[in-house]
Formats: sequence, C-alpha cells, structure tokens
Amino acid sequence: MDSDFGIERELSDLQKLRSQYRPELPPCLQGTTVRVEFGDATTAADSSGSHTISRSFPHTYGQPIAHFLRANAKVPDAQVITDHPATRVGVVFCGRQSPGGHNVIWGLLDALKVHNPKSTLLGFLGGSEGLFAQKTLEVTDDILATYKNQGGYDLLGRTKDQIRTTEQVNAALIACTNLKLDGLVIIGGVTSNTDAAQLAETFAEKKCPTKVVGVPVTLNGDLKNQFVETNVGFDTICKVNSQLISNVCTDALSAEKYYYFIRLMGRKASHVALECTLQSHPNMIILGEEVAASKLTLFDITKQICDAVQARDKYHGVILLPEGLIESIPEVYALLQEIHGLLKQGVSADNISVQLSPWASALFEFLPPFIRKQLLLHPESDDSAQLSQIETEKLLAHLVEEEMNKRLKEGTYKGKKFNGICHFFGYQARGSLPSKFDCDYAYVLGHICYHILASGLNGYLATVTNLKNPVNKWRCGAAPITAMMTVKRYGRGHGTSTLGKPALHPATVDLKGRAYELLRQNATKFLMDDIYRNPGPLQFDGPGADAKAVTLCVEDQDYMGRIKKLQEYLDKVRSIVKPGCSQDVLKAALSAMASVTDILSVMSSPSSGNTPF
Amino acid sequence: MDSDFGIERELSDLQKLRSQYRPELPPCLQGTTVRVEFGDATTAADSSGSHTISRSFPHTYGQPIAHFLRANAKVPDAQVITDHPATRVGVVFCGRQSPGGHNVIWGLLDALKVHNPKSTLLGFLGGSEGLFAQKTLEVTDDILATYKNQGGYDLLGRTKDQIRTTEQVNAALIACTNLKLDGLVIIGGVTSNTDAAQLAETFAEKKCPTKVVGVPVTLNGDLKNQFVETNVGFDTICKVNSQLISNVCTDALSAEKYYYFIRLMGRKASHVALECTLQSHPNMIILGEEVAASKLTLFDITKQICDAVQARDKYHGVILLPEGLIESIPEVYALLQEIHGLLKQGVSADNISVQLSPWASALFEFLPPFIRKQLLLHPESDDSAQLSQIETEKLLAHLVEEEMNKRLKEGTYKGKKFNGICHFFGYQARGSLPSKFDCDYAYVLGHICYHILASGLNGYLATVTNLKNPVNKWRCGAAPITAMMTVKRYGRGHGTSTLGKPALHPATVDLKGRAYELLRQNATKFLMDDIYRNPGPLQFDGPGADAKAVTLCVEDQDYMGRIKKLQEYLDKVRSIVKPGCSQDVLKAALSAMASVTDILSVMSSPSSGNTPF
Repeated sequence: MDSDFGIERELSDLQKLRSQYRPELPPCLQGTTVRVEFGDATTAADSSGSHTISRSFPHTYGQPIAHFLRANAKVPDAQVITDHPATRVGVVFCGRQSPGGHNVIWGLLDALKVHNPKSTLLGFLGGSEGLFAQKTLEVTDDILATYKNQGGYDLLGRTKDQIRTTEQVNAALIACTNLKLDGLVIIGGVTSNTDAAQLAETFAEKKCPTKVVGVPVTLNGDLKNQFVETNVGFDTICKVNSQLISNVCTDALSAEKYYYFIRLMGRKASHVALECTLQSHPNMIILGEEVAASKLTLFDITKQICDAVQARDKYHGVILLPEGLIESIPEVYALLQEIHGLLKQGVSADNISVQLSPWASALFEFLPPFIRKQLLLHPESDDSAQLSQIETEKLLAHLVEEEMNKRLKEGTYKGKKFNGICHFFGYQARGSLPSKFDCDYAYVLGHICYHILASGLNGYLATVTNLKNPVNKWRCGAAPITAMMTVKRYGRGHGTSTLGKPALHPATVDLKGRAYELLRQNATKFLMDDIYRNPGPLQFDGPGADAKAVTLCVEDQDYMGRIKKLQEYLDKVRSIVKPGCSQDVLKAALSAMASVTDILSVMSSPSSGNTPF
Repeated sequence: MDSDFGIERELSDLQKLRSQYRPELPPCLQGTTVRVEFGDATTAADSSGSHTISRSFPHTYGQPIAHFLRANAKVPDAQVITDHPATRVGVVFCGRQSPGGHNVIWGLLDALKVHNPKSTLLGFLGGSEGLFAQKTLEVTDDILATYKNQGGYDLLGRTKDQIRTTEQVNAALIACTNLKLDGLVIIGGVTSNTDAAQLAETFAEKKCPTKVVGVPVTLNGDLKNQFVETNVGFDTICKVNSQLISNVCTDALSAEKYYYFIRLMGRKASHVALECTLQSHPNMIILGEEVAASKLTLFDITKQICDAVQARDKYHGVILLPEGLIESIPEVYALLQEIHGLLKQGVSADNISVQLSPWASALFEFLPPFIRKQLLLHPESDDSAQLSQIETEKLLAHLVEEEMNKRLKEGTYKGKKFNGICHFFGYQARGSLPSKFDCDYAYVLGHICYHILASGLNGYLATVTNLKNPVNKWRCGAAPITAMMTVKRYGRGHGTSTLGKPALHPATVDLKGRAYELLRQNATKFLMDDIYRNPGPLQFDGPGADAKAVTLCVEDQDYMGRIKKLQEYLDKVRSIVKPGCSQDVLKAALSAMASVTDILSVMSSPSSGNTPF
C-alpha cells in the first residue's frame, strides 16, 4: 500500500490563513547563536529510586540541566556555540497524534536552516515502523507549506508508540547509523519518551554518535513533572472538548429531559476531564484519582450519581468521566489484572470467564455483555486496558438508570423516569487545527531540539517553562529524561514487593494541587446551579484566542525558574562568605546552612512518605 | 421543579463578543413602516392533493403570498401600513433546539418595539407545555441581553413538538384568548409548522383573533419547499459537524488504522450528511434517499462498503451515515412498521418478537441484540422510529467487519484485519453558538413575523429567499403554510390506498438536484484520493466566517424571486395586449399563451409522475 504522507493538499480558507501564521520566538531562541548554561547535575525526584535509575542509565543519568539564554544575558559561565556544522537530523512521530505535532517539525527545520542552510531534516514515514524500515522523506519548507499550524500527524504518519524491544532498538540504531544522523528527535508522550531515554542510553553505550532528543507531545497532558508544565496538544484537545461539552450543557438546559454522560479521551489520568470541567462547568465529574484514593466501588459511584440527581431535583444534567476511570475502580482493576494475566498466558477471550477467581468472576458476570466484551480486549503497550474502547459512560448510565428505577419503585425517588445519553469525545478532537498556544509551544520546542543537539546533549527532553506568561517570558531549556523517571514498587502480597523498570509514568491529577482545589471550591455550585460556561469554538483571533488552560494558569510551577533562583542564592552566599569575612558572618552562615541542610535531608528522605509529585 | 429559563448568566469572552453582534437588516425591513404586496392566491405544489388540502383548511387555504417591500419600491399595489397599535404577541419554541432560535425572538422583539414601544412579547416557558399551561415570561431587551446570538433554547426551554390533539389545540386557544394575544409565533420544524397551520385554521374557524405565524427553524434542514430555501440552525449544525468530521479524517490519515463510521443527526432526510460531505470530503456517504430509491438491502449496503474498502486498499477511511438511513432500507422499514403496529396495539416490547411475521422475525433475529432493543423503542410523534437512538453506525461497522473477515478467510481479501470505530454526532452540535448566517437569518425572520402580523395574516410562514446572496439582497416575504402541504397516499396492498392528512412532509435530498449532482461528480475522488478538507472550527470573523452551506449555494432556488418575475411578464403581456392592439399582436399572444397553457397543464397534472419537490 502506498502511503499518502507528506503530499501537498488543498486547504480551506481558514486553514490557509492558519498556514500563514508565524509563531513568535522567545528572546533566547532568536538569532543564530546558541548560548547554553549548564546547571547542577540532576537527580531524580524519586530519591528512593535514584539508585536503580542510575544503574539502568549509567551513561545518561545525572547529567546537568541546561538553560538556553538570550544573546545579551549576563551569565559568565554560559557556553556560546557559534560554529554550526551541517547537521543531519531525523524526526519521528511516536504514539497518538496530538494537535501541534507538525509545528515541532517546522520549528526544528527553521532552527536547523537558520544555523546552517546545508543541514538536513529527515522525517520517518509511518512513525516508528518507518524508523525501523528507514523510510524517510526529506522535510523542506515547501513540503511543510500546507502542514504549518495544521492538526494531525499526516505529514509523516504514525504507528506504534514503542521503540522498546531489542529488535526495535537495534533497528533504530542501524537506521541512525546508516542515515548518518547526528540527532534523532522523538515526538511523543510518556511511553515514547521513556523509550527515547533508553535509546539514548543504548546509543551512548554502543558509541553511536546520534544524540536522542525527546519532545513532550501528548493530548493526555500526563507527561508532567518538575521540568514539564504541559504537553503539546493538551490545550487544543481541552478547548475542542470544552466547546462540545458546553454545547451539550446548553442542549441539556434547553430540553430539560436528559442526563448526558460524557467520557473523555486522556488515558489513565484525568487531566483532560478536569481541565474541561474548569472550562465548561458541567454538573459533575468523576475523577479517577478521587475514586482510586477513596477506593470507591462501582456501587459507590452509582450511588453518588443517583444522590446527585435527586439533590438536583431536575431532569437534566451533564456528567464527565475520564476514560481512565474504569481502571481506577479497585475491583474492576483487579478484574482487569486477572484478565490481562490470562490473556498473556494465551488463554483465548472465550475461555477467560471460566478461569477467573470466584470473586472476579462474580463481578464479571454482573456486568452487561457489551462491557464484558470490551474488558476482554488485549491490553495496550503500557499494560493498561484499551481505555478508548471501554464504554464506561454506558455502564454507569445503565447502572444509574437501574438504581433510579429501583428508588422509584421503593418510593424514595418520586420524579420522572431517568434518561441517560452517552458520548465519547476523543477522535473528533484529536485531529483538530491546533490552538494558538499549541502552535507556539510546539514551534518553540522544535527550535529547542536544535539547541539541544548543537549543545551536544543526549537523552534530553526539550522544555519550556513559565508557559502561563506571554511567549517573550518563556524560559527554554532541557533536562535529562532520566531525571523525570520514577521506579514503581509492585506489591505481591505477603509484604514483599518487586521493583519495576525506571520509566516516565503518567502524572495523575494532584489531589493536593491548586487545580483540584479550584474544582472542589466550585463543585457544589457546578452541581446545583447549572452555571454552564460556553468558551465557544476554537478561535484564532479576538477574545478567547489567547486563553490558556485553567490548570496551567492556576498552578504555581516554573520549576526551572526556581532552580535558577536557588543557584543565585547559593552563589550569593559563596560570594559573601569568602575567606576573610568576619567570624560573625561565618557563624551566621554556618548556622543557617546547617538548619537548611537538616530540613532538606528530612524532607527528601524516602521514609518521609512524600510521594514525588 | 423550578425552571432555570430566562435567567441572566455569565458569558465567556467569546460569548460576550457575540452578544454584541448586531445582524444587518435587508432594506425592506428597515424603518418603521410595513409595505406589503400580495401576490396571486396560492395553490399547493401537490396538485392532486390540493382539493383535500382546501377541504381541510377552508379558512386558510388559497391565501396569496406576500412580499415585504423597501420604502422606496415602486409597486403601486403595495399596501403601506403606518398605523401600528400596541400589539401582544406570544412566542413558543416547539420541538428540538436549533442554533439561532433565540435570534428569532430578538428580531421579533426589536420589530415590535420599533413600531410601537408599548407592544408586548410573551415567551412561553417550557415550550408547548408552557403554552398549554399559560406559563409566560415577558421578553425584554434586558432579559435577552445574554441570549443574543447564543445557541440553545434555554431562554424559554422547549418540550414537545406537538400542538395537535383536540385537548392541546383547545388549551392553546384558551391560552391565546386569556392572554389577549394578537399573534402567536411558533418556532419549529416540519411537525410544528403543520400544527401551526392547523392552529391557524381552528383559530379562524372559532373566530379567535390571534393570528398564527410559523418560522422555519430546524437543524434537519428538511423544511424545504418552493418558498423555503433553508432552515435556521442547519448552517451551524453542518459547520460544527464538518469540523468534527474533518478532524476525524485527519485522525484517520495520521494513524491509518481505523475506518470511522459517523452517523449524523438530521431525522429522515439526509440533508445534514450531504452538506457535511460537500464541506469536509469524507470517503463515503450512504444517502438514505439513494438506498430508498435503489431499494438496497442491508446486505447490499454492507457489500458496497466492503467493496469500497477493498478498492481503496487502505486501512483507514471515513464513512458518513444519516440517522434516517435505517428507515430507508426497505426491509428494515417493513420490520419497523410491524413493530410500531404491535406497540400501538399495546403489545409489550418483550412480546413483540414472537408476534412478528415470519419474514420480519427472520430479519429481527439476524440483527445483533443492541439493535433489536433500539428498534423496539416507541416511535416519535411523526411516526418515525427513534432515529437518534438507533446505532446504525454500529450495525454497519459490525456487518462490514464480519464480511471482511469472511473475505479474509476465503482469500478474496488479503489485507489486515478491518477495524471500525463508531460515532454519533448530534447533541454536541445542537447547542452550539450559531453561525453568523444563522444569527442573521433568524433575526431577519423574527422581524418578518412582525410584518406578517401587522399585515393581518394568519397561518403564514415567514420566508427569506435569495439567501445565498448578501443580506442586502435578501427577499422577505410570507407564504401560507397550506401551500407547502402535500397529501400522502398509503398503499394497503391489493391496489388500494388511503389518503393521509395534509401536512408538511420532510423534504428529502433531491436525487435530481444540483447538490446531489455535485456529490456524484466528486464521489470517486472522495472515495479514492483522501482529499479531506478541513473547514476548521466555526469562526465569527475572517476567512470562513461568511461561508454559506454548499447545498444552499449550488441550488438555483429563489422561487419567490421567480414568482415575481412571472408576474411581471404577465403584467407586461396584459399591458401590451390591451383592447385596441393590432390583430397580429393579439394573434401572436393567443398562440403563445395557448401553447404555454398546454405545456403547463400537462406538467402539473397528477398523472405526469412529477413528484412535488
């Protein structure tokens, strides 16, 4: 089969307008010089796992973070790179398409060409499969013309999100060697960037000169950590979904006869659902993280919704569910684990139900047939269930309807019949034209990839922080992917546990964070008062066009900014307390530093129970 | 339960901007005078049914059409209405919400107030139920402030689309009398406007002074006839859906692993699906009208899709299905008729399958359980099945997958496994912010409602023609609803047939029309070449903001304009051939007119087989 990738195509008027849009660059990326300042060597937030990580990544663990600086920044230690030999870089889309992906490629191409017009950018056709098969397309400005600021991954296509097996890693190594690549840029989410780190380590070990760079592009918004504030695609997805959700809210309020159950794509974590709630104010959201933390059962959730319906005393409402919810319910998770275990043993789907443990079997038999069929699907590459295929919204609508009918019969509910209508919002948002924010963010990340490669770094993720501020305030940098890894412990019962492989794990919604706090503050109003908010369709000009994600704006992040600030304090202490300073100054410094050191030791010891992020 | 209707609410930035937008008025509606010119008395396009219609509507059938004229138009016969006593008008949303409905109310209020500030507009709360219960809200400019140019029907709410039973008609009559209404404006689609005509007739018969006016507002776009070019809401729905469809197309092309089956809301006719196809160029559309005309079976359609998949030789694609498709398949329609018959006899859903005829039963048993359950739902008020609840897309995806698996086994298909993903796009578009076109069209129709009432007309529908041109070229008028009616004949086998009640019937896609021709010209390219087009999210400014529906623009409609043109010709003949003209001129006129009359008699006779529209 011939692929349709990279062909020029007819654009609609709006697409044409968007293709003419040129994202701004922050001051540090302007010009033709790369100025990089290295920070301290990195550790991992997961201090208990850092030993495991360093053992697994001897060549790439512990590298320093990097800041890219504006030409006139007064940083004496900064390296100024003015020599830019012609560079060959490969780029590959890994995993699910996310609006803005094309702009990473555009930014990278622009940066390559501005520093040396003889540099070459090769796109791998068909994602990771194209990498293994060395199927490339030379990306030029002409080829990009109809893909700038456009959605989808159809310039190059994508296949799997994995570059993981020995065979795959070897194929990638051979491809990079044969194609004489100086750099390989991997565009993807949690899984793909874990693989990018592994690839970087392997390349370093095998003395392959290709440097590997990762870019955080995933609509799920779950590649979040001390260095990464948000991901390319998340902003667009939340805006498109919020538009649809608020349309449904308006619909609900107009007819007053349906409860809408809307499941949102976004994998295990509930970031998309939370952001959409804060944008469009539906009546209710069932966060997977809350369910997991409170160990709610299917019956608890059903009861919660039914009680809410009765409290509202209305026949309409809108309830959001993250697609990861189903796995967050402890008993369903246990059932899925059993099913996946049996599938791995080669048991066919038809024979699984009879081999389940009595308890899992009871739950399985209780579930409606359509859900049973969906639970039996093979797990995804990250071992989770096929969340996009499991219609949790239908299951809950069904259970709520049954419970409401029961209450009606018992006389504890005296209203009209409960009517649920179900939706899954995912695929219809994923291919959207990217929002201005995602266009800008992706384009800047593309530039940073070049700066990382020009600085000779390997196994780094391109980062932009201070994103809630305007582009000219954005801070550009890079951090080793290994510094973002954690190590999972799997309990095996009897008090024993095994260690997983170091990896990036999807960040879940922080139940102590500000975004969640904002939700809790408003939850009762949302539930009772129908203060639906309609952000409207994605705009590229005028009101709303420059709006940023609520969850991005309420969080007080800027980790990279703070790291810099700390360095400044330490430098200041060092410059004040130089040999020759007074006894009193030295004593005061010693006492204060001893105290700081004590506090930090306690806080960062593994036993303190502070989970990383 | 308290209603939430008509409350002021917080608007998002974009909503605020939109609430400030003020639609333009065509010249004929500007100023404070109403100038109306009456055309000839109307007939019905369904000449064979005209007798039946005139018998059912003795007071309202055969009224002339009305044109509203600009102040400086040189039409000697035009009535100029300068006296505008304070008027009391009621307005009610009937049937499904459609983007733009609020603007009809706004236009009506503005027109009422500009002609007499003492006039009153009462909105019925909760749709037709509110009319029966006389629950009103006085609509003021303050109350409208946060509803101008906004979607949904939540200013007043809506319930059923029916004002039909004797009880309902009487309740409406009592409400209009008690509230001393001079006019009642009914905002709705085919069913509601049929009921509006009946209400007008009953009011006239019972000497109730309230005049009834209908407004064509339905997202289905199926209230189409010689007088009505399109409906309020259709433009928005098609734009919102086309955005989502093209996002899915981009998604399909990026991953190259799924066939998407997308069902579109729009009731029996396929207008929405056709328009969306012309806007977004998916690979395939199965038009209900084609299926009905060619009497295709479920197997034929399945085979058609499978053959298309094999011809494409690709693992991705996008297929659109109108929600009315299921009823267009002859054998399914027959089955549905049997089911609905049994339901009407009071047979419970559980007992229906055993009472079906052997043939219907065989089909029923063949269908997957989820579809069986959906087919057993009670029919809608227009006797059609609950189309929004029947997942035709899942049925076809299932049948296509089975057939592809069969072909794989037989070796006639040699590709990878076929993967279908299903969507239903309806509710998420219905509550959208209305497009500029719908804002303008609805606002203008609201003004026309006042002009109709000021002209003392009863049983009329507000009309705007020449819509594909800019607002200042729009022609405003009114036509008796009875002139749009047709009478259906129901075959009872054995060659006998019975006549239905005169009614507006949903216009289906004209398989001889230009829009369909455009589809056919491009169908092969759409199928094979993936020339997906992304109109992007609904914009209110810049490229695309003023785009109009393709089906509106390609059709050569302007019926009202042509009727005027014809009148001018007739007037000209009359003025040339006055008594005293030469023998030759008279002879030429006679001969030409005889010929014209002959041709027209033949063409408009019922036996000529020309179906009306």
